[in-house]
Formats: sequence, structure tokens, C-alpha cells
Amino acid sequence: MMHQASRVTITAEKLIQDGLTEIIEAEGALGYSVFEGGGKGQHGLHGLLRSPIVDEFAIIKIEVVVTDRAVAEAIAEKVTKAFFADHSGIVYIDNVEILRPTKFGNSP
Amino acid sequence: MMHQASRVTITAEKLIQDGLTEIIEAEGALGYSVFEGGGKGQHGLHGLLRSPIVDEFAIIKIEVVVTDRAVAEAIAEKVTKAFFADHSGIVYIDNVEILRPTKFGNSP
Amino acid sequence: MMHQASRVTITAEKLIQDGLTEIIEAEGALGYSVFEGGGKGQHGLHGLLRSPIVDEFAIIKIEVVVTDRAVAEAIAEKVTKAFFADHSGIVYIDNVEILRPTKFGNSP
Repeated sequence: MMHQASRVTITAEKLIQDGLTEIIEAEGALGYSVFEGGGKGQHGLHGLLRSPIVDEFAIIKIEVVVTDRAVAEAIAEKVTKAFFADHSGIVYIDNVEILRPTKFGNSP
Repeated sequence: MMHQASRVTITAEKLIQDGLTEIIEAEGALGYSVFEGGGKGQHGLHGLLRSPIVDEFAIIKIEVVVTDRAVAEAIAEKVTKAFFADHSGIVYIDNVEILRPTKFGNSP
Repeated sequence: MMHQASRVTITAEKLIQDGLTEIIEAEGALGYSVFEGGGKGQHGLHGLLRSPIVDEFAIIKIEVVVTDRAVAEAIAEKVTKAFFADHSGIVYIDNVEILRPTKFGNSP
């Protein structure tokens, strides 16, 4: 039997990896995966300084699966506030189905 | 025109990669992708021995897209039974849309 | 508050990476990520020449998130037409939720 869960995907500069995983762990996620890659995107500059320049850069992708949607949203919001005004990166959430909710925390 | 399909994502220790891909091929999937990364998570120990210790480890992520949802669930269940009582790892399914069902097997 | 967006995932031979990212940029996507991995799958040969042989090969996975579903479908269709008759590879779309639509183009 499958159970609903939420996956948070964060794609960001490698230099902020520790800051990202600190937020993930503080929110109570029981695990995460990290993959290294490359990317191209807009610089995440403030307001009027937002640059149209698109740069290539080394990135990491972090994936976290949690059973509690509120935890997924909290991670996305805190990561965005803490880092994505000043650093390139994106965060998004999608729905996945898991077999064993106890692996992912907050399960009944 | 897009067609519904199911993606199975398996994140696990690299040492069980061959066992995982054997199950995937035995279930009739026509292809899969493998990515190397790192991760942090709970050990997958049995019942009362389940450890609260969280370790860092080298992982692989395997992705398989199939048109038949039953194949996706069979892969998830068999991988869980065969490996995830004794090894770290998670498996989950989500829905994707594809253009060419014949690439993924079992299409009408 | 979360906003709907579409993620395009392309898994293909590394040798066509530049051709793939040219299509992605031409369609107006503001960024993408690239990850290297391995895979196993069918050769993408034409019609009756379609081979049942399954080969292992080095792959890249490219992920693009856009707010406009039509852009996602245009990327998927153009990539398929340009490359996947003659090269191994798959492309699929799934739904994700983002926090900041301005990062992904075409937002209100």
C-alpha cells in the first residue's frame, strides 16, 4: 500500500550546502540526498538589482522526502528566505508515493 | 500528445546497485538511469533494532519510467522486501507525462 | 504561497547536451540543471530498424522548471523531434510547486 508524501527539491550553489542541510535537519527531516551537477540560471539579486545576466555555475541538488506537507513547505520557505535573495537557486515541492512512512518521519 | 506514466525513484547504498537493477530488469522495464551522490539518513535496521543514528553515506539514485503503474508498484515492493530491511534506502513513485509510450514498454 | 509550475526532465546521451540546451534556451527557459550519470536503455532507431538491443551508456539528465506549461510541452516536442529518432533518450514532464514564479519566466 502506498502513502502520500512530499518531496522538496533544492537546486543551489555548492557553497551554501551546509546552510541548506542545517535548515533541513532543523525542520525534522530524517534524511536527504545530495547530487552534484552544473547549471545555468539567473543570479538571485535583490529587487532592482536583479540581473538579466545568465551564468553557468556548479550546483548541488538536494532532495528531501517527508510525510508532512507542512514540513516540506517550511523547508522551502526558510531556504528561500535565508539564501535565495543573495544566491542563485530554486526550490520546489512535488507529490510522491512511498511504501514505508516510518522512514520519513511524522507518520501515524 | 502526452501520456501518463509512472516514475520509480530508488535512493540506496551503491553496494546494492546490481541487486536493484536485476529487479528492475526482471519486472520488464526497458531502461533506467543511475546517478551517484551522497546522503544522510537512518539505518534500515529491523524492528526493535531500528537505530536513531543518522549516518552519512555514498548513494546512488536510480530512476525508472514505465507506462504500467502495476510494474512501478511491483518494483517498489520487491526492492523494499529484498533490500530495505537491512540496507539504508528509500523508494517512491510519482506520475510523469511522456510523449512516446513505446519507449517505456507495455503501451497500447 | 506555492504556485504551479512544470518540470521537464530530459535523459540523454552526453554528446547531444549542447543541442538540448540550445532548444531549452530558445524556448525561453531562464535556467536549467545538468547531472551526469549512467543508464541502460533501448537504442532510439527509426521505425522498423528499432533495435531490441539494450545498451549501457553515459548519460546526462537535464531538468528545467517553467511556469508556462506550453513552454514545457514545446521543449519536450522539439527535443524529441530533433534528437530522439536517432539517439537514446527520454523526456517527460511533471508538475511541481514553486515559491517565486518570477525566477522561472512568464509569470503574472
